[in-house]
Amino acid sequence: MATNLAAVLHGIGDLRIEDRPMPTPGPDEVVVRIESVGICGSDVHYYEHGRIGDHVVRAPMVLGHESSGVVVEPGDSALRAGQRVAVEPGVPCGRCDQCRRGSYNLCPNVAFFATPPIDGSLAHFVAVNAAFAHPVPDGLSDDAAALIEPLSVGLWANRRAGTGLGSRVLVTGAGPIGVLCALAARAAGAGWVGLADVHPDRLAAAERFDADEVIDARNDVDYAAFRPDILLECSGAPPVVTAGVRALQPLGHAVLVGMGPTAEQNLPVSLIQNRELTVTGTFRYAHTYPDAIGLASSRRIDLDALVGARLPLKDAEAALKMGHTDPSVLKTVVRVQD
Amino acid sequence: MATNLAAVLHGIGDLRIEDRPMPTPGPDEVVVRIESVGICGSDVHYYEHGRIGDHVVRAPMVLGHESSGVVVEPGDSALRAGQRVAVEPGVPCGRCDQCRRGSYNLCPNVAFFATPPIDGSLAHFVAVNAAFAHPVPDGLSDDAAALIEPLSVGLWANRRAGTGLGSRVLVTGAGPIGVLCALAARAAGAGWVGLADVHPDRLAAAERFDADEVIDARNDVDYAAFRPDILLECSGAPPVVTAGVRALQPLGHAVLVGMGPTAEQNLPVSLIQNRELTVTGTFRYAHTYPDAIGLASSRRIDLDALVGARLPLKDAEAALKMGHTDPSVLKTVVRVQD
Amino acid sequence: MATNLAAVLHGIGDLRIEDRPMPTPGPDEVVVRIESVGICGSDVHYYEHGRIGDHVVRAPMVLGHESSGVVVEPGDSALRAGQRVAVEPGVPCGRCDQCRRGSYNLCPNVAFFATPPIDGSLAHFVAVNAAFAHPVPDGLSDDAAALIEPLSVGLWANRRAGTGLGSRVLVTGAGPIGVLCALAARAAGAGWVGLADVHPDRLAAAERFDADEVIDARNDVDYAAFRPDILLECSGAPPVVTAGVRALQPLGHAVLVGMGPTAEQNLPVSLIQNRELTVTGTFRYAHTYPDAIGLASSRRIDLDALVGARLPLKDAEAALKMGHTDPSVLKTVVRVQD
Amino acid sequence: MATNLAAVLHGIGDLRIEDRPMPTPGPDEVVVRIESVGICGSDVHYYEHGRIGDHVVRAPMVLGHESSGVVVEPGDSALRAGQRVAVEPGVPCGRCDQCRRGSYNLCPNVAFFATPPIDGSLAHFVAVNAAFAHPVPDGLSDDAAALIEPLSVGLWANRRAGTGLGSRVLVTGAGPIGVLCALAARAAGAGWVGLADVHPDRLAAAERFDADEVIDARNDVDYAAFRPDILLECSGAPPVVTAGVRALQPLGHAVLVGMGPTAEQNLPVSLIQNRELTVTGTFRYAHTYPDAIGLASSRRIDLDALVGARLPLKDAEAALKMGHTDPSVLKTVVRVQD
Repeated sequence: MATNLAAVLHGIGDLRIEDRPMPTPGPDEVVVRIESVGICGSDVHYYEHGRIGDHVVRAPMVLGHESSGVVVEPGDSALRAGQRVAVEPGVPCGRCDQCRRGSYNLCPNVAFFATPPIDGSLAHFVAVNAAFAHPVPDGLSDDAAALIEPLSVGLWANRRAGTGLGSRVLVTGAGPIGVLCALAARAAGAGWVGLADVHPDRLAAAERFDADEVIDARNDVDYAAFRPDILLECSGAPPVVTAGVRALQPLGHAVLVGMGPTAEQNLPVSLIQNRELTVTGTFRYAHTYPDAIGLASSRRIDLDALVGARLPLKDAEAALKMGHTDPSVLKTVVRVQD
Repeated sequence: MATNLAAVLHGIGDLRIEDRPMPTPGPDEVVVRIESVGICGSDVHYYEHGRIGDHVVRAPMVLGHESSGVVVEPGDSALRAGQRVAVEPGVPCGRCDQCRRGSYNLCPNVAFFATPPIDGSLAHFVAVNAAFAHPVPDGLSDDAAALIEPLSVGLWANRRAGTGLGSRVLVTGAGPIGVLCALAARAAGAGWVGLADVHPDRLAAAERFDADEVIDARNDVDYAAFRPDILLECSGAPPVVTAGVRALQPLGHAVLVGMGPTAEQNLPVSLIQNRELTVTGTFRYAHTYPDAIGLASSRRIDLDALVGARLPLKDAEAALKMGHTDPSVLKTVVRVQD
Repeated sequence: MATNLAAVLHGIGDLRIEDRPMPTPGPDEVVVRIESVGICGSDVHYYEHGRIGDHVVRAPMVLGHESSGVVVEPGDSALRAGQRVAVEPGVPCGRCDQCRRGSYNLCPNVAFFATPPIDGSLAHFVAVNAAFAHPVPDGLSDDAAALIEPLSVGLWANRRAGTGLGSRVLVTGAGPIGVLCALAARAAGAGWVGLADVHPDRLAAAERFDADEVIDARNDVDYAAFRPDILLECSGAPPVVTAGVRALQPLGHAVLVGMGPTAEQNLPVSLIQNRELTVTGTFRYAHTYPDAIGLASSRRIDLDALVGARLPLKDAEAALKMGHTDPSVLKTVVRVQD
Repeated sequence: MATNLAAVLHGIGDLRIEDRPMPTPGPDEVVVRIESVGICGSDVHYYEHGRIGDHVVRAPMVLGHESSGVVVEPGDSALRAGQRVAVEPGVPCGRCDQCRRGSYNLCPNVAFFATPPIDGSLAHFVAVNAAFAHPVPDGLSDDAAALIEPLSVGLWANRRAGTGLGSRVLVTGAGPIGVLCALAARAAGAGWVGLADVHPDRLAAAERFDADEVIDARNDVDYAAFRPDILLECSGAPPVVTAGVRALQPLGHAVLVGMGPTAEQNLPVSLIQNRELTVTGTFRYAHTYPDAIGLASSRRIDLDALVGARLPLKDAEAALKMGHTDPSVLKTVVRVQD
């Protein structure tokens, strides 16, 4: 009889590998055997703090939402058993105002993996809405298929920014999301992409990707000298937000991707007015999976290059601690079936 | 021989009516006999403080930039003598990056009436680039033709906001710009327009225009209850900016029109991210004159209703003081030839 | 025991008033007692020809899809019994690519009233997805609430065209859809709206609405003289399509709303290139109901003015023939409960 | 004393290398020593037919408009002598409606190289408006700098189409413009790019570029099987236009780039309506030079790979005949100073 081992968060710093019941798919759902799950900063945050803002882990919850796998029970869907899929982790209601206008990432009724109280996908088997289990071609690795999720964040940031042919894109914060924002900007035709950070490990990692400029922001940096017209802010650090916005060319766009420490921040409103800048933010993503899969499987963006460590499910806790163990690892992946 | 009386600012609080040389039109220019000039807050600010930010009045300068008149010397232009025109006060270079992409309001080489050291139009005669002297039909009064300029500010704010059929538009600050933003929003098909202020005189004035809701913001107001998806912020007051942005629906747009007291302000960045709000600003306007003339001359927007006082040129100083003399006057117009 | 009389089309020219079973609402559905149903050209076309293109009436089908009513069984929805609603007639699947990106009008799985084999709403009671039963305020009449449907077509055409402040909009074809396109254009801030037709009755009717120009197209008309930048083509007549597109200003937009007699038509491709014109079409509408309800209930658009005849359900057949009986009637409404 | 040899078209098939007066730069102009000039189909058409549509060569005219060179007289401009530049061949007026809204490619007053009666740039020296002489970095060859012009056509087509991350772009017609449209689509993040033609030479050439699919359209092709959402039509052939539009996914965009044989063509209007397709065209380009220079100099697009033949100025006539001499040559460049 099949078991369904899962990485369950019971409290701060208390992660357990447990056998969970096999998922029973609802209508429109398929069962997916999970292969790879990327570890995201939010998983780490729940593990370390038991909450993210208003989202509090009050009952044991399976972690993980960057996942790929294989359909094992296709139900009534058009998918077939054996189909490899990238799993989009948020299933919106499809009926609210936001859903109807296509902004399903803002659906107030969404069920999102590993956002309390919804269990995540760091498990042997999960049930998934068929429309959110996206087929991937054989050429795309399981790990890369899992990382379609953070790539979606990068795509969405660039869509919100309007990155296009010739854009000059400054990315502040060179963690995995910053790197993926930069790679997506480059794929979108940006004429110049700069990637800035203050951590030596991240700066070293950034050098491996083809940013036009890796910017060591520990020194005094005049971002304006790069004449960016787009800022993808992935650090969340208030002084960086301000410096980045101040550097923008007239009619420039700033997209706040990284979460900051406070609900409010100082922004240079005079410049926003005088240069008619636009400041906006991103919340997850919508309509990105098929496009991201295409970009990754055609090698326009190489997702495998981000993976710095692969661990089996039994070492999920070590995976959550990898950021401290080895800061040079950009992305850790849990190989669930190993 | 023609004289060319003009209202010249010599220093703080020192306005003189002087005879200036008749303008000698350059190539592409026409000479316009000015009829009406609206008094703008910036005129008052130069009169009271001698500067606006970095723009300092260092030599005597003619005030005024909201103006209409009659072409008296058409030069080589397609205009004819006698043509009544609304005068767009900023003439951009036509060659810089901003001009070439149509954002001529951001041209760094612009010559703008009554922005030091460029003389304004509060004079009997001025030279004007023919392409910026916009013909108006007979049905449009001289005063209304002058007020095409502030109406342009209102149009531009709505264009930047994307106001359209069914938009719910909250306007904070019910001075002349706020009222014109509201009228333009209504003309653009907004399904709901709210106009908020704290001054009793302005609230009373606001009642005369057809806002769906005049909001007395002296009381505790929950702007979110109106479910606005657009904020046109015309007060510049930091707490109002914050409250307005916080009230926006998901994917809402805030346009900062009013100048605030400081270069930086606190903004609710978490909400900007979680609701994917957009915050931007306006700097003057572009491509608005023909459209604004159409809206005003077809009475979709009644500009004459804004005019609360009309004074001759010799009383220009009284016009500048009208805001203190009678705060219920929304807009004062100088009848230059009277 | 409640009866559920309905107007059922059994074949070409064979309409019968029959008692149908009371609807049994599915999950997410409410039961609505229908009050008003507008007669649409498509209802007439099914009655006269038994088909529209590939859509063939193969079994008895209730007609009608422009409808309003009162919720009588709210089920689990947020609606309450007694709530007056305008009924959006097409319920999309919410899961396909088109639905997810917000283009639910293009959902291949949509169930649309009175499109075979789906029954329409010309009946005493119908079951409706709660999310598509839009509350209307008391100030909006039942007839106007029914006409939110064709107004949606007009709104959508203007959205697709990008009508905004100052647009110059030429509407060709002054039937109900043409008139509603014109009224929506006006509401959206168009600076000029022209309404053209060749039928004296329609031209006379058009005069009652506030188009800037009613254009008698029986004579040789030079549409270009009006300098339109938007064409909303509602006649479907190939020469009118061509003449309308040829009249457009550079960067103009043509939206093909009316169905033509053939799948292909000649279009002036050289002009489309040299002036960078855009030609597109509309298929129903999406996201229009709340906005249309707002515009109609605030009297920015007066829908009751379109209604030229009101008949009880037993006279539904006469309602379908009204276009022949009295061509001056722009819109006929069936008062279902009378 | 400097001579100014130029390739002058005196009549159909009558090209002469003549010494022309040295250019005398007007205000805002610089003198450029031309290095490379690409031969465009329009040069060939003037040479073979003496006209293109309404543009008739009535007096001897220098050919050429795809050009690069070195500034030799910088005048009052910000350029320095010795600066290498790509020369944008059309100088608009900067004051008309089109110019002011940024659509300077539609300026009715434009002076465009080698469009009668304006002389082209196939000459040792030309005078150029400084704002249209775009600096290029050292890494960009003279030939590539000349080909910024046709690349601009490709960029513009993709901008008009809205090509972005994940777009599926079908390019019909694999001549130089088709290839550049495909390369620009790929640079803009298209997830799939197909390049179709019927000529074996062009199909062979197309294989050298990294289209995802080279489509031999001599056979019966079902373009719809590729699920394109964008069509960049570069053949001008009416059946291809129709087939391409018919293949588009719902909400797809077709951009007509290639000129067809007739002013009007049949288009599938029913599909345009039912799928809400958009059909538009391109006329030259605007705002493309800096972006195109960035893409080419960073090797995101390799322009040198298009050049199949290089000839000195004295062989300009042979360059015009290259399409017949060797159809496998995608682009011929005249090395003016050789």
